[in-house]
Amino acid sequence: MKILVVNCGSSSLKFQLIDMDNEEVLAKGKCDRIGASEGEIGSPFIEYKGNGAKIKEELPLPEHVAAFRAVVRYLTDEKVGAVKDLSEVSAIGHRVVNAGPFFKESTLVTPDVLERFKTKSIPYAPLHNPAALQGINACFETMEGIPQVLVFDTTFHQTMPEKAYMYGVPYDWYEKYGIRRYGAHGMSHQFVTEEAARLLGKDVNEVNMISCHLGNGSSITAVKNGKCVDTSMGFTPLEGLVMGTRSGDLDPAILEFVMERENMDIHEMLNTLNKKSGLLALSGKTGDIRDLRMLRDEGDERAAMALDVLAYRVRKYVGAYLAVLGHVDCITFEGGIGEHNPDVVKACIEGLEEFGIKYDDSHMGDEMYEGVVSTEDSKVKMFVIATNEEIIIAKEALRLVK
Amino acid sequence: MKILVVNCGSSSLKFQLIDMDNEEVLAKGKCDRIGASEGEIGSPFIEYKGNGAKIKEELPLPEHVAAFRAVVRYLTDEKVGAVKDLSEVSAIGHRVVNAGPFFKESTLVTPDVLERFKTKSIPYAPLHNPAALQGINACFETMEGIPQVLVFDTTFHQTMPEKAYMYGVPYDWYEKYGIRRYGAHGMSHQFVTEEAARLLGKDVNEVNMISCHLGNGSSITAVKNGKCVDTSMGFTPLEGLVMGTRSGDLDPAILEFVMERENMDIHEMLNTLNKKSGLLALSGKTGDIRDLRMLRDEGDERAAMALDVLAYRVRKYVGAYLAVLGHVDCITFEGGIGEHNPDVVKACIEGLEEFGIKYDDSHMGDEMYEGVVSTEDSKVKMFVIATNEEIIIAKEALRLVK
Repeated sequence: MKILVVNCGSSSLKFQLIDMDNEEVLAKGKCDRIGASEGEIGSPFIEYKGNGAKIKEELPLPEHVAAFRAVVRYLTDEKVGAVKDLSEVSAIGHRVVNAGPFFKESTLVTPDVLERFKTKSIPYAPLHNPAALQGINACFETMEGIPQVLVFDTTFHQTMPEKAYMYGVPYDWYEKYGIRRYGAHGMSHQFVTEEAARLLGKDVNEVNMISCHLGNGSSITAVKNGKCVDTSMGFTPLEGLVMGTRSGDLDPAILEFVMERENMDIHEMLNTLNKKSGLLALSGKTGDIRDLRMLRDEGDERAAMALDVLAYRVRKYVGAYLAVLGHVDCITFEGGIGEHNPDVVKACIEGLEEFGIKYDDSHMGDEMYEGVVSTEDSKVKMFVIATNEEIIIAKEALRLVK
Repeated sequence: MKILVVNCGSSSLKFQLIDMDNEEVLAKGKCDRIGASEGEIGSPFIEYKGNGAKIKEELPLPEHVAAFRAVVRYLTDEKVGAVKDLSEVSAIGHRVVNAGPFFKESTLVTPDVLERFKTKSIPYAPLHNPAALQGINACFETMEGIPQVLVFDTTFHQTMPEKAYMYGVPYDWYEKYGIRRYGAHGMSHQFVTEEAARLLGKDVNEVNMISCHLGNGSSITAVKNGKCVDTSMGFTPLEGLVMGTRSGDLDPAILEFVMERENMDIHEMLNTLNKKSGLLALSGKTGDIRDLRMLRDEGDERAAMALDVLAYRVRKYVGAYLAVLGHVDCITFEGGIGEHNPDVVKACIEGLEEFGIKYDDSHMGDEMYEGVVSTEDSKVKMFVIATNEEIIIAKEALRLVK
């Protein structure tokens, strides 16, 4: 059975067509700059990889419907397509960042579900959910009759205990608005947990571990007996580690102090904390990890400081979750930063030998950075794992249409 | 030499007169309800302990000057006084919570210092600093000629490295407004660090430890070689652990979500997070630890949950600082909660045997809860220590007038 996995952003659409018999990716690609006019700085385009071909085509993409039409055209193309007919696609799996307290697990899209998502869930990911909604509607229009499934980044975190998800704020905010920790990157943490169990040769329900998803957005999750017990992202993906452009943890009193002096309202403030903060703000130049490493190596002090802060915050969460779990089998690193930056990973966990954590990447170069990164005698194993959120979405979609 | 230590709140004044030759407290007490009219629900009063006497007197205290006059009257009283004449007092030490980036260490009050404190520092502790200022002025009026010294709760934390004190927010906020981690409870953490070194039989400059000050306000500090390297309170005392009425850590996006729906402005929001949150909000009944324990023991689920959240957050910070320090000689518990609630302390650190942390309070009852609380074979020692912020203030004042 073939599953189409889609991830809609406000101006983008990523997709993968996966053959679930062997988990092979038959085709993948993205549409970007949806809604931009041709001839603007960047024109809309589709990138497509499938059947041995790799194609980039600029074309008008006024909205998501047009983007999905282009995807369908490529997927069913005689030469480069991956299916003869759309009827070969058993389901479409949509990634949803956070739907608030209204959806706890993956669900088939029904009129009821769509209505609930539209009227209740939008504010819990105001940047992402409207795009997901556009994607769902575009699929109804362009791939009529194929079941759609919503898969949530928050589902893996639903097993957190109350003491981990409750904030110390008025209790009626929890009751009225669902103010609690939801977390994100759930599919990545779930994939890596299953993969780590395999590498440890253990049943996943017996694995205690700390999963560090470090990318442009970053989160760390504590896993006990295969289930999430805490995670660093909170009510939204703003909390936790310092990220590309997101501040992560801070004293909420800072908001009042700065808003008063800069004459900002709360929306401008949150926009700043989400889009103009983090590594970008600390370095003053870039939130991109490769550029930061380059700048640091050239002697840029602020870039070096930004990287220091990043590693230091990871270290603190790793420590916090060591204490939460009491016993840990392994620590994993995944995501764009985790998979490609040995020096960053090293800075996060060196000097923890007393806690049975011994880092060793002596056997791996920069290019091939995947696998074991702990010494043989390290009590806590450490793995760099190439994460795969799409396969989790595809599996969930398959499970629900079966 | 005798030092008068004072701690001014907006409607209160606590004081201790200490003989620094033997660190004996000659007299102590407080004025409360300063500014309240007589006959209101609570009338202003002074409590005084000295020379074997213990006195409580209701009297008009329209402002801090009147309160200091009452203190002077008692201190020099023929029968219960501690000095014959005010000239025996060598200095007055004021506790200052946070003066922002304008004062790094204790300082004698000069006209320059007073001007700087008045014009620059007030916003960094808007509830506390105006009271401290009133206290300083009242001392000029009531104890003319006695040198005054400002001692800051933030000084002990000045040794934090950049990676610990920088937030991931626009860098010009740091440059323009001094937005960074300052911490608080510095005198308590300093006192406990010195005391722990004594108990360990080590030079203080060789001690690595985690100091947990748990009271109505709570903070945890990581100490490396006797110096603070990180602390849980931040730009203000709002950040970090969940406290009596303060929220502690939360996702800053919550502020926007709730302000919009409750039609609150940022000042109401911060007021709520500082005064109507924390254990009080979680339990819905009280922020007082004794009441919470009683309610829990009677089966109140929300009180039990509030206590769970408290212990869980402490555990996470202890873990975070274990990872920051790499090696830890001891963990201390102090403050109202730390010194009197074995079950809370236990909940914070049980189950950490794998990290060399073994809790044991079998030899101590509820009444006599001070001393060692780790097992003999615990690699990390644990102590409950009666903290003493006043003696640190007195020592600093003495050092500066000598």
